[in-house]
Amino acid sequence: MSNNSSKQQSYPWDIPTKKPARELSVAMSRLYDSYLTPRPEDNPLFTSFKYTELSGFDYHNDDGTLSRRDPSKIIKVDGLYYVWYTKRCTQFPPKGAKHCNELIPSTDWDLSEIGYATSINGFDWIEQGIAVPRPDYPQLGWRSVSTPDILIYENKYYLYYQAFNEASGKKGDHCPVTLSVADKPTGPWRPHGKVIIDNGEPGSWDQFSIHDPYLLIYKGKIHLYYKAAYGDRPDYLVGNGLAIASNPLGPFEKHPLNPILNSGHETTYFPFGSGIAAFSIRNGNESNTIQYSPDGVNFSIAAVTSLMPIAAGPYVANAFNSEGNENGIEWGLCHFSDKKALNKHSFLARFDCSLMANELEKELKITDVPHHPSVYFAQSLSPELKIKRSSHDQEKEKKS
Amino acid sequence: MSNNSSKQQSYPWDIPTKKPARELSVAMSRLYDSYLTPRPEDNPLFTSFKYTELSGFDYHNDDGTLSRRDPSKIIKVDGLYYVWYTKRCTQFPPKGAKHCNELIPSTDWDLSEIGYATSINGFDWIEQGIAVPRPDYPQLGWRSVSTPDILIYENKYYLYYQAFNEASGKKGDHCPVTLSVADKPTGPWRPHGKVIIDNGEPGSWDQFSIHDPYLLIYKGKIHLYYKAAYGDRPDYLVGNGLAIASNPLGPFEKHPLNPILNSGHETTYFPFGSGIAAFSIRNGNESNTIQYSPDGVNFSIAAVTSLMPIAAGPYVANAFNSEGNENGIEWGLCHFSDKKALNKHSFLARFDCSLMANELEKELKITDVPHHPSVYFAQSLSPELKIKRSSHDQEKEKKS
Repeated sequence: MSNNSSKQQSYPWDIPTKKPARELSVAMSRLYDSYLTPRPEDNPLFTSFKYTELSGFDYHNDDGTLSRRDPSKIIKVDGLYYVWYTKRCTQFPPKGAKHCNELIPSTDWDLSEIGYATSINGFDWIEQGIAVPRPDYPQLGWRSVSTPDILIYENKYYLYYQAFNEASGKKGDHCPVTLSVADKPTGPWRPHGKVIIDNGEPGSWDQFSIHDPYLLIYKGKIHLYYKAAYGDRPDYLVGNGLAIASNPLGPFEKHPLNPILNSGHETTYFPFGSGIAAFSIRNGNESNTIQYSPDGVNFSIAAVTSLMPIAAGPYVANAFNSEGNENGIEWGLCHFSDKKALNKHSFLARFDCSLMANELEKELKITDVPHHPSVYFAQSLSPELKIKRSSHDQEKEKKS
Repeated sequence: MSNNSSKQQSYPWDIPTKKPARELSVAMSRLYDSYLTPRPEDNPLFTSFKYTELSGFDYHNDDGTLSRRDPSKIIKVDGLYYVWYTKRCTQFPPKGAKHCNELIPSTDWDLSEIGYATSINGFDWIEQGIAVPRPDYPQLGWRSVSTPDILIYENKYYLYYQAFNEASGKKGDHCPVTLSVADKPTGPWRPHGKVIIDNGEPGSWDQFSIHDPYLLIYKGKIHLYYKAAYGDRPDYLVGNGLAIASNPLGPFEKHPLNPILNSGHETTYFPFGSGIAAFSIRNGNESNTIQYSPDGVNFSIAAVTSLMPIAAGPYVANAFNSEGNENGIEWGLCHFSDKKALNKHSFLARFDCSLMANELEKELKITDVPHHPSVYFAQSLSPELKIKRSSHDQEKEKKS
């Protein structure tokens, strides 16, 4: 019997839930050392994702003149869910930096305002209007205000967002972060009028943009996570940074270990257990991962998944009063973008997941997310590459 | 300025290609310690995947009576590509273990034979017929022979495959591995008639099945990788094991550190550099990863990707004569399965990737694989879960 040759008894059929006292391959050691449980089906930080279209939002028949994107994290006040988002309602769809003017947006998030909506169930929404309009020239954000997130601190509401003083795309996507303050989630919102998170010094990874501010209160301090693309295009990476403050108006101190995520395009964070978990959806070697940090700074892969929500804004029950035993998230909003040049716009949708420490939703713990074959064939070779690969490439081979 | 507070200068805009001498977050350290390059676009072990339908195969109008699946790795002999696969041509489609008989298959791979086909370009294929038919009762594999892989050793051809002596599904999917031998890739094939890789001893992870044999010659030894599902369903994992021999007919010694992959459903391996790389597509915390081992045994995550090929059989130029500086793979065949109960069958397709040490194909280094929103909405909540989540779940929340 071949297995008589084993220096130790074979690994058992019944999956040990704790690391067994035996020699293990590096991969099997990792199964116990790197993940909460050996099976993703039991892993509170593994989830698959489900998606639902929302009711309550009109998009001008998708003609590109009305866009909603980059939803904030969702909060619940007096039994009502609130979300803020980039709302662009323009006479024309985006036409690029070269053709933009006072009426024509360059990108989908140019000439935008901060809209907000409420819901009693997270599926059906009612738009309540504009929370923060574009201020008059030359005030901060006069060209566009976008990509908001919400903080509740000492019974006041703080809306953080990107403030553009030039059309996005003119020199990349350059902007700092500012905020507005209100006594109620319905406003009225008082613009702070000053930069809250400044771009990094020349030559630093975040020298041009502080994007996607995302607020949590963790260990009694205000944690603002943000993203910046660094490195000249197309050779860029997207990093996430952290800035910490004791007061919503700052000063915010950027963490010396920034960037604190090596992959991921947007900022989606939530308290989990005694630490902070994050989504890393694309851009980087660790795309399609859910990551966890015991300290909010040092993140490791906690699960690998697929079909992650774009620009996710989850409902985070205890975003501002975490007590060190947080239960994670179950749903949120994300956006989809119509990539067509002529009527480019985005729309909001709901994602569901199971990232709760205290409850596993079997339906949302699937590693084998089934797709129709057409989903694969939609990813087709370019005609050039197909021709190249159809012809013999002997020089690329050794004897076979 | 907030960033004056940094204890060290900010991380630079120009992405350092080598690990910079500075304090780094755990994630940024990993970017340099765990991956070949900081950017996936430069990472020889990162790839996205493209898919192409094949010409040359008929499927009885997809009525479920003709199925081709589980392609072997692909070899090239005298300028011609060869692939072997599970071919099922039955009067009836699969009807499950309860309703199967001598004419009715239980699963898609029951009552199957080993077919083979050739191609000059990898896109257009000509089926050459049956390489290994089912032997007569009670010979090994009389019920079904499936899931082949090929080894060339000292100018002889060895076809390894699963040998079923009972209908798959009766008690799981139980079978050992056997082989047939030929002097040419076109056969004739002489059945060895004996078990080559036996199931593990009772209670061991591979006690019931040795699936998906996959052959490489590495460091002068025949390496046979295989998979087995372990743990009682639905609480199972899929592991990969390794058995090593000096002769194609064995004896094969199972590696004492088995399992050597902690995730992944099938076996797809190829020499890369001086080590062995593998696909891990689903089942487990490390689904959707490409892994690398310096020794063929101890695998770590080398890249995270998405939309990976199912049951991939790549063209591996130097599968049997690797010289320690292997250039990886660019394409192969995979299968798609029609999940409909009434006419369940599978068909072969081509995947393309860029996993070459010496050549990067930009088109295949995309972390942002775009999908139409309908691909996301196809992953919809069950009606029960939607109702549950539409209603208030106050008990699940603390004050918010």
